[in-house]
Amino acid sequence: MSTAIRSLGRLFLVPAPLDFMCETQVPLSHVMPLHTLQIASQLSHWVCENAKSTRALLKRIDAVCPLKTPLQSQQLVELPRLVHKKGDHAAGVDTSGLLANALAGHDMGLVSEAGMPAVADPGSSLVRAAHDAGVEVIPLVGPSSLLLALSASGLNGQQFAFVGYLPQDTAERAQRIQTLEKHALKTGETQLCIETPYRNQALWQALLGHLQAHTRLCRSSNLSLPQMQTVSKRVADWRKNPGELDKHTPVVFAFGP
Amino acid sequence: MSTAIRSLGRLFLVPAPLDFMCETQVPLSHVMPLHTLQIASQLSHWVCENAKSTRALLKRIDAVCPLKTPLQSQQLVELPRLVHKKGDHAAGVDTSGLLANALAGHDMGLVSEAGMPAVADPGSSLVRAAHDAGVEVIPLVGPSSLLLALSASGLNGQQFAFVGYLPQDTAERAQRIQTLEKHALKTGETQLCIETPYRNQALWQALLGHLQAHTRLCRSSNLSLPQMQTVSKRVADWRKNPGELDKHTPVVFAFGP
Repeated sequence: MSTAIRSLGRLFLVPAPLDFMCETQVPLSHVMPLHTLQIASQLSHWVCENAKSTRALLKRIDAVCPLKTPLQSQQLVELPRLVHKKGDHAAGVDTSGLLANALAGHDMGLVSEAGMPAVADPGSSLVRAAHDAGVEVIPLVGPSSLLLALSASGLNGQQFAFVGYLPQDTAERAQRIQTLEKHALKTGETQLCIETPYRNQALWQALLGHLQAHTRLCRSSNLSLPQMQTVSKRVADWRKNPGELDKHTPVVFAFGP
Repeated sequence: MSTAIRSLGRLFLVPAPLDFMCETQVPLSHVMPLHTLQIASQLSHWVCENAKSTRALLKRIDAVCPLKTPLQSQQLVELPRLVHKKGDHAAGVDTSGLLANALAGHDMGLVSEAGMPAVADPGSSLVRAAHDAGVEVIPLVGPSSLLLALSASGLNGQQFAFVGYLPQDTAERAQRIQTLEKHALKTGETQLCIETPYRNQALWQALLGHLQAHTRLCRSSNLSLPQMQTVSKRVADWRKNPGELDKHTPVVFAFGP
């Protein structure tokens, strides 16, 4: 009788709750399936966006599913700074060296500060390297602010694009908003974008200032948290009562016809 | 002392497991946070893509979190056929009448056959109607094949588009694939598409036939199920051993630079 031996470890993509840097923490059972927590609790080799937030997450997981390896014995390696700064594709950094543990037979986890790793967050270069090295990639179910926002927007969910961060320069941002809106109105494609919380108010004012009155604009804040709120209406209606965004709340913006 | 009275019900967006029409069923605890199941178990007024699959889902939920209202007393209303066929935006159907229960003070659930409602599935017209009627929209965490596929693809997750279904006509499909690829290579934006399972093989052959050799193409099948598999490589490498897709397996395709 032969026993199957797995010579390579696998790369698990472990989602994180969406409460990173938020005042309120959400119970893990609100946003993570038990299976995701169980798998994560068995891992002891991590590649992460941020070692400190990963340790905090592992402590929270430990309280629900005891970790197989004590936290102080776990191996956490951060993605290179250039990947953080420029994104995996623009950075063009070779992260295959971070897969050494998987090549040595250990299962590994990839985790970001919030949400699905490698989606609106760094990590895709490591996933790509895993495929190239024959390391199996297994995504686990968890929260994604983009999908929650899209679902709740009332905008077209059968055709959509996540366009990332818009330019910070006022004129460039205005032009980008108008280009995206033109595309959205022509094709029906919903446009999703995000910003670092302390720049949300500037982006919000730019969207209200440059989108057409009839375009529908949706603002989802604190997704998956108790104080979550999604408001979706025509720009003309928003302009009557635009409100203000604080510097700490995570927001996803979406617009389209 | 005043007691807050909620005069309107809320619209909960309830995700469904990704095993619809699949041979294997996944335990709900693998793909749904406990909180999502608890909320769903309290609802008794539903708008759904498919009443039969919703009843089957409610039975599975009942086994984990007993339903507050027995299944036979629950109210299930299907979205209009035109919305199924053409999509909410193209159909232009007014679905606000389906919110009657929420306007009468009952919490309601929107659910599709698989994954997040109103994402790559009908339902966004109802969500839009809810916003317009002042009904609070609350998306719950659960599985989304698109996000799992993107995360596992190794493709750019910081800029991506879901383009839905490609044309069935051979020439039109070829042209569409080339247009999407040109856009992807120019902008770096990952392109995600799906097909009904019995047409997956035709789409697969078209992708392999019309994409450029250097383009990276990812195929994710059976996402979140035990037999889940994601393979991501250059088109040139796929052509050496393209494999075949069966008529029953749900697949998400993604490509980009």
